[in-house]
Amino acid sequence: MNSIKINQLASFSKTLTEYDVSTFAGVTGDFNSVHIDKVAAERSIFKERIAHGMLTASFISTVIGMYLPGKGSIYLEQNIKFLKPVKIGETITAWVQIVNFDSNKNIYTLSTWVENSQSIKVIDGSAKILYVK
Amino acid sequence: MNSIKINQLASFSKTLTEYDVSTFAGVTGDFNSVHIDKVAAERSIFKERIAHGMLTASFISTVIGMYLPGKGSIYLEQNIKFLKPVKIGETITAWVQIVNFDSNKNIYTLSTWVENSQSIKVIDGSAKILYVK
Amino acid sequence: MNSIKINQLASFSKTLTEYDVSTFAGVTGDFNSVHIDKVAAERSIFKERIAHGMLTASFISTVIGMYLPGKGSIYLEQNIKFLKPVKIGETITAWVQIVNFDSNKNIYTLSTWVENSQSIKVIDGSAKILYVK
Amino acid sequence: MNSIKINQLASFSKTLTEYDVSTFAGVTGDFNSVHIDKVAAERSIFKERIAHGMLTASFISTVIGMYLPGKGSIYLEQNIKFLKPVKIGETITAWVQIVNFDSNKNIYTLSTWVENSQSIKVIDGSAKILYVK
Repeated sequence: MNSIKINQLASFSKTLTEYDVSTFAGVTGDFNSVHIDKVAAERSIFKERIAHGMLTASFISTVIGMYLPGKGSIYLEQNIKFLKPVKIGETITAWVQIVNFDSNKNIYTLSTWVENSQSIKVIDGSAKILYVK
Repeated sequence: MNSIKINQLASFSKTLTEYDVSTFAGVTGDFNSVHIDKVAAERSIFKERIAHGMLTASFISTVIGMYLPGKGSIYLEQNIKFLKPVKIGETITAWVQIVNFDSNKNIYTLSTWVENSQSIKVIDGSAKILYVK
Repeated sequence: MNSIKINQLASFSKTLTEYDVSTFAGVTGDFNSVHIDKVAAERSIFKERIAHGMLTASFISTVIGMYLPGKGSIYLEQNIKFLKPVKIGETITAWVQIVNFDSNKNIYTLSTWVENSQSIKVIDGSAKILYVK
Repeated sequence: MNSIKINQLASFSKTLTEYDVSTFAGVTGDFNSVHIDKVAAERSIFKERIAHGMLTASFISTVIGMYLPGKGSIYLEQNIKFLKPVKIGETITAWVQIVNFDSNKNIYTLSTWVENSQSIKVIDGSAKILYVK
Protein backbone atom coordinates (compact mmCIF):
# COMPACT_ATOMS: atom_id res chain seq x y z
CA MET A 1 0.00 0.00 0.00
CA ASN A 2 1.25 3.40 -0.82
CA SER A 3 -0.05 6.91 -1.08
CA ILE A 4 0.30 7.44 -4.83
CA LYS A 5 -3.02 8.31 -6.49
CA ILE A 6 -4.29 7.97 -10.06
CA ASN A 7 -3.92 11.31 -11.91
CA GLN A 8 -1.26 12.46 -9.47
CA LEU A 9 1.25 14.81 -11.14
CA ALA A 10 4.89 15.71 -10.62
CA SER A 11 7.29 17.85 -12.62
CA PHE A 12 10.87 19.08 -12.83
CA SER A 13 12.04 22.23 -14.60
CA LYS A 14 15.49 23.18 -15.84
CA THR A 15 17.09 25.60 -18.24
CA LEU A 16 18.99 23.61 -20.88
CA THR A 17 22.34 25.37 -20.99
CA GLU A 18 25.46 25.20 -23.10
CA TYR A 19 26.95 23.16 -20.26
CA ASP A 20 24.17 20.56 -20.42
CA VAL A 21 24.36 20.09 -24.17
CA SER A 22 28.16 20.00 -24.28
CA THR A 23 28.34 17.57 -21.37
CA PHE A 24 25.66 15.28 -22.79
CA ALA A 25 27.52 15.23 -26.13
CA GLY A 26 30.70 14.48 -24.22
CA VAL A 27 29.24 11.53 -22.33
CA THR A 28 27.27 9.97 -25.18
CA GLY A 29 29.56 10.79 -28.10
CA ASP A 30 26.64 12.28 -30.04
CA PHE A 31 28.49 15.12 -31.78
CA ASN A 32 25.90 15.54 -34.56
CA SER A 33 26.49 19.01 -35.99
CA VAL A 34 23.06 20.41 -35.02
CA HIS A 35 24.20 20.10 -31.40
CA ILE A 36 27.82 21.24 -31.48
CA ASP A 37 28.47 23.26 -34.64
CA LYS A 38 26.93 26.76 -34.68
CA VAL A 39 27.66 27.36 -38.36
CA ALA A 40 26.18 24.04 -39.57
CA ALA A 41 23.21 24.38 -37.20
CA GLU A 42 22.37 27.80 -38.65
CA ARG A 43 22.24 26.21 -42.11
CA SER A 44 20.03 23.35 -40.87
CA ILE A 45 16.22 23.40 -40.71
CA PHE A 46 16.55 24.27 -37.00
CA LYS A 47 18.40 27.55 -37.79
CA GLU A 48 20.40 27.28 -34.56
CA ARG A 49 21.99 24.71 -32.21
CA ILE A 50 19.46 22.51 -30.42
CA ALA A 51 19.61 20.16 -27.45
CA HIS A 52 19.79 16.40 -27.99
CA GLY A 53 16.26 14.93 -27.92
CA MET A 54 17.35 12.20 -25.53
CA LEU A 55 18.76 14.83 -23.17
CA THR A 56 15.37 16.55 -23.00
CA ALA A 57 13.67 13.16 -22.60
CA SER A 58 15.98 12.21 -19.75
CA PHE A 59 14.30 14.74 -17.45
CA ILE A 60 11.25 12.44 -17.50
CA SER A 61 13.48 9.85 -15.88
CA THR A 62 14.48 12.48 -13.32
CA VAL A 63 10.86 13.05 -12.31
CA ILE A 64 10.22 9.30 -12.13
CA GLY A 65 13.35 8.46 -10.17
CA MET A 66 13.20 11.43 -7.82
CA TYR A 67 9.51 12.22 -7.27
CA LEU A 68 6.80 10.06 -8.82
CA PRO A 69 6.77 7.15 -8.20
CA GLY A 70 10.28 8.07 -6.85
CA LYS A 71 12.53 5.75 -4.85
CA GLY A 72 11.74 2.13 -5.63
CA SER A 73 10.97 2.84 -9.31
CA ILE A 74 12.37 0.37 -11.84
CA TYR A 75 12.10 1.54 -15.42
CA LEU A 76 10.40 -1.00 -17.67
CA GLU A 77 9.41 1.09 -20.66
CA GLN A 78 9.63 4.62 -22.05
CA ASN A 79 7.98 5.69 -25.29
CA ILE A 80 8.94 9.09 -26.65
CA LYS A 81 7.60 11.26 -29.45
CA PHE A 82 9.81 14.25 -30.26
CA LEU A 83 7.41 17.03 -31.27
CA LYS A 84 9.56 20.15 -31.37
CA PRO A 85 13.25 21.03 -31.09
CA VAL A 86 14.55 22.64 -27.88
CA LYS A 87 17.01 25.48 -28.31
CA ILE A 88 19.99 25.95 -26.04
CA GLY A 89 18.93 28.34 -23.28
CA GLU A 90 15.29 27.17 -23.32
CA THR A 91 13.70 26.26 -19.99
CA ILE A 92 11.83 22.97 -20.08
CA THR A 93 9.49 21.22 -17.64
CA ALA A 94 9.20 17.43 -17.60
CA TRP A 95 5.87 16.07 -16.38
CA VAL A 96 4.75 12.68 -15.12
CA GLN A 97 1.14 11.71 -14.40
CA ILE A 98 -0.08 8.42 -12.92
CA VAL A 99 -2.52 6.79 -15.38
CA ASN A 100 -2.91 3.29 -13.94
CA PHE A 101 -1.60 0.96 -11.23
CA ASP A 102 -1.65 -2.82 -11.68
CA SER A 103 -1.58 -3.97 -8.07
CA ASN A 104 -0.94 -7.62 -8.97
CA LYS A 105 2.25 -6.82 -10.84
CA ASN A 106 3.09 -3.59 -8.99
CA ILE A 107 3.36 -1.76 -12.30
CA TYR A 108 2.51 1.90 -12.82
CA THR A 109 1.54 3.24 -16.23
CA LEU A 110 2.49 6.89 -16.61
CA SER A 111 1.74 9.65 -19.04
CA THR A 112 5.00 11.55 -19.60
CA TRP A 113 5.68 14.77 -21.47
CA VAL A 114 7.99 17.77 -21.62
CA GLU A 115 6.94 21.39 -22.20
CA ASN A 116 8.94 24.45 -23.09
CA SER A 117 8.53 27.79 -21.29
CA GLN A 118 5.54 28.68 -23.53
CA SER A 119 3.77 25.53 -22.23
CA ILE A 120 4.09 23.93 -25.67
CA LYS A 121 4.74 20.19 -25.64
CA VAL A 122 8.15 19.38 -27.08
CA ILE A 123 8.02 15.69 -26.11
CA ASP A 124 5.07 13.40 -25.50
CA GLY A 125 5.01 9.80 -24.35
CA SER A 126 4.29 7.14 -21.79
CA ALA A 127 6.19 4.94 -19.35
CA LYS A 128 5.84 1.74 -17.33
CA ILE A 129 7.44 1.45 -13.92
CA LEU A 130 7.81 -1.57 -11.66
CA TYR A 131 7.53 -0.38 -8.10
CA VAL A 132 9.49 -2.23 -5.39
CA LYS A 133 9.70 -1.03 -1.81
CA MET B 1 18.21 9.29 -53.07
CA ASN B 2 20.84 7.91 -50.75
CA SER B 3 22.93 4.82 -50.19
CA ILE B 4 21.28 3.52 -47.00
CA LYS B 5 19.94 -0.02 -47.41
CA ILE B 6 17.21 -1.97 -45.63
CA ASN B 7 18.74 -4.21 -42.92
CA GLN B 8 21.87 -2.03 -42.80
CA LEU B 9 23.45 -2.04 -39.32
CA ALA B 10 25.57 0.35 -37.30
CA SER B 11 26.79 0.24 -33.71
CA PHE B 12 28.73 2.15 -31.08
CA SER B 13 30.46 0.63 -28.05
CA LYS B 14 31.52 2.27 -24.81
CA THR B 15 32.41 1.26 -21.30
CA LEU B 16 29.94 2.94 -18.91
CA THR B 17 32.24 4.40 -16.29
CA GLU B 18 31.84 6.15 -12.97
CA TYR B 19 32.45 9.36 -14.90
CA ASP B 20 29.54 8.74 -17.26
CA VAL B 21 27.05 7.89 -14.52
CA SER B 22 28.12 10.79 -12.28
CA THR B 23 28.08 13.25 -15.16
CA PHE B 24 24.69 12.09 -16.43
CA ALA B 25 23.28 12.42 -12.89
CA GLY B 26 24.81 15.88 -12.70
CA VAL B 27 23.22 17.08 -15.92
CA THR B 28 19.77 15.49 -15.49
CA GLY B 29 19.38 15.71 -11.72
CA ASP B 30 18.38 12.03 -11.54
CA PHE B 31 20.04 11.25 -8.21
CA ASN B 32 17.97 8.13 -7.51
CA SER B 33 19.95 6.18 -4.92
CA VAL B 34 20.52 3.11 -7.14
CA HIS B 35 22.72 5.33 -9.29
CA ILE B 36 24.63 7.43 -6.80
CA ASP B 37 24.44 5.78 -3.32
CA LYS B 38 26.59 2.67 -2.99
CA VAL B 39 25.13 1.68 0.39
CA ALA B 40 21.51 2.00 -0.70
CA ALA B 41 22.27 0.33 -4.05
CA GLU B 42 23.74 -2.71 -2.26
CA ARG B 43 20.49 -3.06 -0.32
CA SER B 44 18.38 -2.71 -3.50
CA ILE B 45 17.34 -5.58 -5.78
CA PHE B 46 20.24 -4.61 -8.05
CA LYS B 47 22.83 -5.33 -5.29
CA GLU B 48 25.12 -2.61 -6.67
CA ARG B 49 25.04 0.79 -8.36
CA ILE B 50 23.65 0.74 -11.91
CA ALA B 51 23.68 3.17 -14.82
CA HIS B 52 20.61 5.26 -15.58
CA GLY B 53 18.42 3.48 -18.16
CA MET B 54 18.12 6.67 -20.16
CA LEU B 55 21.92 7.02 -20.25
CA THR B 56 22.25 3.55 -21.77
CA ALA B 57 19.40 4.34 -24.18
CA SER B 58 21.10 7.57 -25.26
CA PHE B 59 23.81 5.66 -27.11
CA ILE B 60 21.11 4.65 -29.59
CA SER B 61 20.83 8.36 -30.35
CA THR B 62 24.62 8.46 -30.82
CA VAL B 63 24.48 5.75 -33.49
CA ILE B 64 21.57 7.48 -35.22
CA GLY B 65 23.10 10.97 -35.12
CA MET B 66 26.64 9.93 -35.99
CA TYR B 67 26.41 6.87 -38.22
CA LEU B 68 23.01 5.60 -39.39
CA PRO B 69 21.15 7.43 -40.84
CA GLY B 70 23.76 9.97 -39.49
CA LYS B 71 23.88 13.64 -40.43
CA GLY B 72 20.44 14.86 -41.50
CA SER B 73 18.59 12.64 -39.00
CA ILE B 74 15.68 14.23 -37.13
CA TYR B 75 14.37 12.18 -34.24
CA LEU B 76 10.61 11.63 -34.42
CA GLU B 77 10.12 8.71 -32.08
CA GLN B 78 12.04 6.37 -29.76
CA ASN B 79 10.43 3.46 -27.95
CA ILE B 80 12.49 1.77 -25.25
CA LYS B 81 12.07 -1.42 -23.21
CA PHE B 82 14.53 -1.72 -20.35
CA LEU B 83 15.29 -5.46 -20.10
CA LYS B 84 18.25 -5.64 -17.72
CA PRO B 85 20.24 -3.29 -15.50
CA VAL B 86 23.71 -2.17 -16.59
CA LYS B 87 26.40 -2.12 -13.90
CA ILE B 88 29.00 0.60 -13.73
CA GLY B 89 32.07 -0.63 -15.59
CA GLU B 90 30.05 -2.71 -18.05
CA THR B 91 30.80 -2.25 -21.77
CA ILE B 92 27.69 -1.80 -23.87
CA THR B 93 27.05 -1.73 -27.61
CA ALA B 94 24.15 0.24 -29.05
CA TRP B 95 22.78 -1.09 -32.36
CA VAL B 96 20.62 0.45 -35.06
CA GLN B 97 19.18 -1.47 -38.00
CA ILE B 98 17.20 -0.02 -40.89
CA VAL B 99 13.79 -1.72 -41.04
CA ASN B 100 11.87 0.44 -43.48
CA PHE B 101 12.10 3.66 -45.51
CA ASP B 102 8.99 5.60 -46.46
CA SER B 103 10.23 7.52 -49.49
CA ASN B 104 7.14 9.78 -49.63
CA LYS B 105 7.67 11.08 -46.14
CA ASN B 106 11.45 10.51 -45.95
CA ILE B 107 11.00 8.55 -42.74
CA TYR B 108 13.17 5.65 -41.63
CA THR B 109 11.87 3.04 -39.22
CA LEU B 110 14.69 1.56 -37.18
CA SER B 111 15.10 -1.39 -34.90
CA THR B 112 17.23 -0.22 -31.96
CA TRP B 113 18.77 -2.18 -29.11
CA VAL B 114 21.67 -2.21 -26.67
CA GLU B 115 23.70 -5.26 -25.64
CA ASN B 116 26.12 -5.81 -22.79
CA SER B 117 29.55 -7.42 -23.28
CA GLN B 118 27.98 -10.91 -23.06
CA SER B 119 25.82 -10.00 -26.08
CA ILE B 120 22.71 -10.01 -23.88
CA LYS B 121 20.12 -7.37 -24.77
CA VAL B 122 19.73 -4.83 -21.98
CA ILE B 123 17.49 -2.51 -24.00
CA ASP B 124 15.19 -3.21 -26.93
CA GLY B 125 13.13 -0.80 -29.00
CA SER B 126 12.41 1.02 -32.20
CA ALA B 127 12.78 4.53 -33.62
CA LYS B 128 11.44 6.73 -36.39
CA ILE B 129 13.73 9.25 -38.10
CA LEU B 130 12.89 12.00 -40.55
CA TYR B 131 15.80 12.29 -42.94
CA VAL B 132 16.62 15.70 -44.46
CA LYS B 133 19.66 16.31 -46.60
CA MET C 1 44.79 -3.95 -48.02
CA ASN C 2 42.30 -1.24 -47.34
CA SER C 3 40.15 1.26 -49.14
CA ILE C 4 41.95 4.46 -48.10
CA LYS C 5 43.20 6.47 -51.07
CA ILE C 6 45.98 9.03 -51.51
CA ASN C 7 44.51 12.57 -51.33
CA GLN C 8 41.44 11.31 -49.44
CA LEU C 9 40.07 13.97 -47.08
CA ALA C 10 38.09 13.95 -43.83
CA SER C 11 37.07 16.74 -41.49
CA PHE C 12 35.30 17.50 -38.23
CA SER C 13 33.71 20.83 -37.29
CA LYS C 14 32.86 22.20 -33.85
CA THR C 15 32.14 25.53 -32.25
CA LEU C 16 34.76 26.15 -29.54
CA THR C 17 32.63 27.20 -26.58
CA GLU C 18 33.26 28.51 -23.11
CA TYR C 19 32.60 24.95 -21.94
CA ASP C 20 35.38 23.55 -24.12
CA VAL C 21 37.99 26.09 -23.07
CA SER C 22 37.10 25.87 -19.37
CA THR C 23 37.04 22.09 -19.43
CA PHE C 24 40.34 21.84 -21.31
CA ALA C 25 41.93 24.23 -18.79
CA GLY C 26 40.50 22.12 -15.99
CA VAL C 27 41.95 18.88 -17.31
CA THR C 28 45.36 20.16 -18.39
CA GLY C 29 45.98 22.83 -15.76
CA ASP C 30 46.90 25.37 -18.45
CA PHE C 31 45.40 28.43 -16.76
CA ASN C 32 47.43 30.96 -18.72
CA SER C 33 45.54 34.24 -18.39
CA VAL C 34 44.81 34.62 -22.13
CA HIS C 35 42.52 31.60 -21.78
CA ILE C 36 40.80 32.13 -18.44
CA ASP C 37 41.13 35.79 -17.41
CA LYS C 38 38.92 38.17 -19.41
CA VAL C 39 40.55 41.32 -18.00
CA ALA C 40 44.10 40.19 -18.66
CA ALA C 41 43.13 38.81 -22.09
CA GLU C 42 41.69 42.19 -23.11
CA ARG C 43 45.04 43.80 -22.26
CA SER C 44 46.98 41.14 -24.19
CA ILE C 45 47.84 41.31 -27.91
CA PHE C 46 44.83 39.04 -28.52
CA LYS C 47 42.38 41.64 -27.11
CA GLU C 48 40.08 38.88 -25.85
CA ARG C 49 40.15 35.33 -24.45
CA ILE C 50 41.35 32.67 -26.89
CA ALA C 51 41.22 28.90 -26.99
CA HIS C 52 44.30 26.88 -26.07
CA GLY C 53 46.31 26.08 -29.22
CA MET C 54 46.57 22.45 -28.17
CA LEU C 55 42.78 22.24 -27.78
CA THR C 56 42.31 23.40 -31.36
CA ALA C 57 45.04 21.01 -32.51
CA SER C 58 43.37 18.10 -30.71
CA PHE C 59 40.52 18.04 -33.22
CA ILE C 60 43.07 16.78 -35.76
CA SER C 61 43.39 13.76 -33.48
CA THR C 62 39.59 13.43 -33.52
CA VAL C 63 39.52 13.22 -37.31
CA ILE C 64 42.39 10.71 -37.32
CA GLY C 65 40.93 8.51 -34.56
CA MET C 66 37.32 8.64 -35.72
CA TYR C 67 37.38 8.97 -39.50
CA LEU C 68 40.66 8.86 -41.41
CA PRO C 69 42.47 6.50 -41.07
CA GLY C 70 40.02 5.90 -38.16
CA LYS C 71 39.94 2.77 -36.01
CA GLY C 72 43.33 1.08 -35.95
CA SER C 73 45.26 4.37 -36.09
CA ILE C 74 48.29 4.66 -33.81
CA TYR C 75 49.71 8.16 -33.52
CA LEU C 76 53.43 8.30 -34.24
CA GLU C 77 53.99 11.98 -34.91
CA GLN C 78 52.14 15.30 -35.03
CA ASN C 79 53.78 18.55 -36.12
CA ILE C 80 51.84 21.73 -35.50
CA LYS C 81 52.30 25.36 -36.57
CA PHE C 82 49.98 27.77 -34.77
CA LEU C 83 49.15 30.45 -37.37
CA LYS C 84 46.30 32.43 -35.79
CA PRO C 85 44.49 32.59 -32.45
CA VAL C 86 40.98 31.10 -32.17
CA LYS C 87 38.47 33.15 -30.21
CA ILE C 88 35.91 31.54 -27.92
CA GLY C 89 32.72 31.03 -29.93
CA GLU C 90 34.58 30.51 -33.21
CA THR C 91 33.63 27.44 -35.27
CA ILE C 92 36.64 25.49 -36.47
CA THR C 93 37.07 22.64 -38.93
CA ALA C 94 39.95 20.17 -38.55
CA TRP C 95 41.11 18.54 -41.78
CA VAL C 96 43.17 15.46 -42.53
CA GLN C 97 44.40 14.47 -45.99
CA ILE C 98 46.27 11.29 -46.91
CA VAL C 99 49.63 12.23 -48.46
CA ASN C 100 51.47 8.91 -48.54
CA PHE C 101 51.22 5.27 -47.46
CA ASP C 102 54.33 3.20 -46.80
CA SER C 103 52.95 -0.32 -47.28
CA ASN C 104 56.07 -1.98 -45.85
CA LYS C 105 55.76 -0.20 -42.53
CA ASN C 106 51.97 0.40 -42.65
CA ILE C 107 52.59 4.10 -42.02
CA TYR C 108 50.40 6.89 -43.35
CA THR C 109 51.75 10.40 -43.78
CA LEU C 110 49.01 12.99 -43.40
CA SER C 111 48.65 16.66 -44.10
CA THR C 112 46.71 18.13 -41.18
CA TRP C 113 45.27 21.60 -40.67
CA VAL C 114 42.51 23.54 -38.94
CA GLU C 115 40.45 26.36 -40.46
CA ASN C 116 38.16 28.91 -38.86
CA SER C 117 34.69 29.70 -40.22
CA GLN C 118 36.19 32.13 -42.77
CA SER C 119 38.22 29.20 -44.18
CA ILE C 120 41.43 30.77 -42.91
CA LYS C 121 44.04 28.32 -41.65
CA VAL C 122 44.62 28.72 -37.92
CA ILE C 123 46.81 25.62 -37.62
CA ASP C 124 48.93 23.84 -40.19
CA GLY C 125 50.92 20.65 -39.86
CA SER C 126 51.52 17.02 -40.63
CA ALA C 127 51.18 13.64 -38.93
CA LYS C 128 52.41 10.07 -39.16
CA ILE C 129 50.10 7.18 -38.28
CA LEU C 130 50.86 3.50 -37.89
CA TYR C 131 47.83 1.58 -39.09
CA VAL C 132 47.02 -1.78 -37.50
CA LYS C 133 43.89 -3.73 -38.30
CA MET D 1 65.67 41.49 -20.88
CA ASN D 2 64.40 38.67 -18.76
CA SER D 3 65.77 36.15 -16.34
CA ILE D 4 65.22 32.98 -18.40
CA LYS D 5 68.46 31.08 -19.01
CA ILE D 6 69.53 28.60 -21.68
CA ASN D 7 69.14 25.01 -20.38
CA GLN D 8 66.63 26.14 -17.76
CA LEU D 9 64.08 23.40 -16.97
CA ALA D 10 60.50 23.30 -15.77
CA SER D 11 58.04 20.46 -15.36
CA PHE D 12 54.48 19.58 -14.40
CA SER D 13 53.29 16.19 -13.13
CA LYS D 14 49.80 14.72 -13.06
CA THR D 15 48.14 11.35 -12.75
CA LEU D 16 46.06 10.73 -15.89
CA THR D 17 42.76 9.55 -14.47
CA GLU D 18 39.52 8.16 -15.82
CA TYR D 19 38.15 11.68 -15.42
CA ASP D 20 40.84 13.22 -17.61
CA VAL D 21 40.45 10.73 -20.45
CA SER D 22 36.64 10.79 -20.40
CA THR D 23 36.57 14.58 -20.27
CA PHE D 24 39.11 14.96 -23.06
CA ALA D 25 37.07 12.54 -25.21
CA GLY D 26 33.98 14.55 -24.36
CA VAL D 27 35.48 17.88 -25.40
CA THR D 28 37.26 16.72 -28.53
CA GLY D 29 34.85 14.05 -29.74
CA ASP D 30 37.70 11.55 -30.05
CA PHE D 31 35.83 8.40 -28.95
CA ASN D 32 38.27 5.97 -30.61
CA SER D 33 37.69 2.62 -28.92
CA VAL D 34 41.19 2.33 -27.41
CA HIS D 35 40.25 5.29 -25.19
CA ILE D 36 36.66 4.56 -24.20
CA ASP D 37 35.88 0.85 -24.73
CA LYS D 38 37.50 -1.52 -22.22
CA VAL D 39 36.59 -4.67 -24.17
CA ALA D 40 37.91 -3.40 -27.52
CA ALA D 41 41.02 -1.92 -25.85
CA GLU D 42 41.87 -5.29 -24.29
CA ARG D 43 41.78 -6.84 -27.77
CA SER D 44 43.98 -4.06 -29.22
CA ILE D 45 47.79 -4.06 -29.27
CA PHE D 46 47.67 -1.85 -26.15
CA LYS D 47 45.87 -4.56 -24.10
CA GLU D 48 44.02 -1.90 -22.08
CA ARG D 49 42.52 1.57 -22.38
CA ILE D 50 45.07 4.33 -22.99
CA ALA D 51 45.03 8.10 -22.79
CA HIS D 52 44.73 10.19 -25.96
CA GLY D 53 48.21 11.12 -27.19
CA MET D 54 47.18 14.75 -27.60
CA LEU D 55 45.97 14.82 -23.99
CA THR D 56 49.39 13.73 -22.77
CA ALA D 57 51.05 16.21 -25.14
CA SER D 58 48.86 19.03 -23.84
CA PHE D 59 50.71 19.06 -20.53
CA ILE D 60 53.70 20.46 -22.43
CA SER D 61 51.47 23.44 -23.19
CA THR D 62 50.68 23.64 -19.48
CA VAL D 63 54.38 23.95 -18.58
CA ILE D 64 54.96 26.53 -21.31
CA GLY D 65 51.89 28.63 -20.48
CA MET D 66 52.26 28.44 -16.72
CA TYR D 67 55.99 28.24 -15.94
CA LEU D 68 58.56 28.44 -18.74
CA PRO D 69 58.54 30.81 -20.49
CA GLY D 70 55.13 31.30 -18.74
CA LYS D 71 52.95 34.39 -19.05
CA GLY D 72 53.60 36.16 -22.34
CA SER D 73 54.21 32.94 -24.26
CA ILE D 74 52.63 32.70 -27.70
CA TYR D 75 52.74 29.23 -29.20
CA LEU D 76 54.25 29.20 -32.69
CA GLU D 77 55.12 25.56 -33.12
CA GLN D 78 54.92 22.19 -31.38
CA ASN D 79 56.43 19.02 -32.80
CA ILE D 80 55.48 15.75 -31.11
CA LYS D 81 56.71 12.18 -31.40
CA PHE D 82 54.52 9.67 -29.57
CA LEU D 83 56.95 7.02 -28.27
CA LYS D 84 54.85 4.91 -25.89
CA PRO D 85 51.19 4.65 -24.85
CA VAL D 86 50.11 6.02 -21.46
CA LYS D 87 47.69 3.87 -19.48
CA ILE D 88 44.85 5.35 -17.49
CA GLY D 89 46.11 5.81 -13.93
CA GLU D 90 49.71 6.45 -15.01
CA THR D 91 51.45 9.53 -13.59
CA ILE D 92 53.23 11.57 -16.21
CA THR D 93 55.66 14.50 -16.04
CA ALA D 94 55.86 17.04 -18.86
CA TRP D 95 59.23 18.77 -19.26
CA VAL D 96 60.33 21.92 -21.03
CA GLN D 97 63.94 23.01 -21.47
CA ILE D 98 65.17 26.25 -23.01
CA VAL D 99 67.44 25.44 -25.98
CA ASN D 100 67.82 28.83 -27.67
CA PHE D 101 66.62 32.44 -27.57
CA ASP D 102 66.56 34.58 -30.71
CA SER D 103 66.66 38.06 -29.18
CA ASN D 104 65.89 39.80 -32.50
CA LYS D 105 62.62 37.94 -32.95
CA ASN D 106 61.96 37.23 -29.27
CA ILE D 107 61.57 33.54 -30.07
CA TYR D 108 62.47 30.71 -27.71
CA THR D 109 63.28 27.24 -29.00
CA LEU D 110 62.39 24.58 -26.46
CA SER D 111 63.08 20.92 -26.04
CA THR D 112 59.85 19.33 -24.80
CA TRP D 113 59.12 15.81 -23.59
CA VAL D 114 56.88 13.77 -21.31
CA GLU D 115 57.97 10.93 -19.04
CA ASN D 116 55.97 8.26 -17.23
CA SER D 117 56.56 7.40 -13.57
CA GLN D 118 59.45 5.06 -14.52
CA SER D 119 61.19 8.07 -16.13
CA ILE D 120 60.69 6.56 -19.56
CA LYS D 121 59.96 9.07 -22.33
CA VAL D 122 56.46 8.61 -23.71
CA ILE D 123 56.57 11.78 -25.84
CA ASP D 124 59.50 13.68 -27.31
CA GLY D 125 59.50 16.91 -29.25
CA SER D 126 60.31 20.57 -29.59
CA ALA D 127 58.50 23.90 -29.55
CA LYS D 128 58.90 27.52 -30.64
CA ILE D 129 57.48 30.31 -28.52
CA LEU D 130 57.15 34.01 -29.29
CA TYR D 131 57.66 35.89 -26.06
CA VAL D 132 55.78 39.17 -25.53
CA LYS D 133 55.81 41.09 -22.29
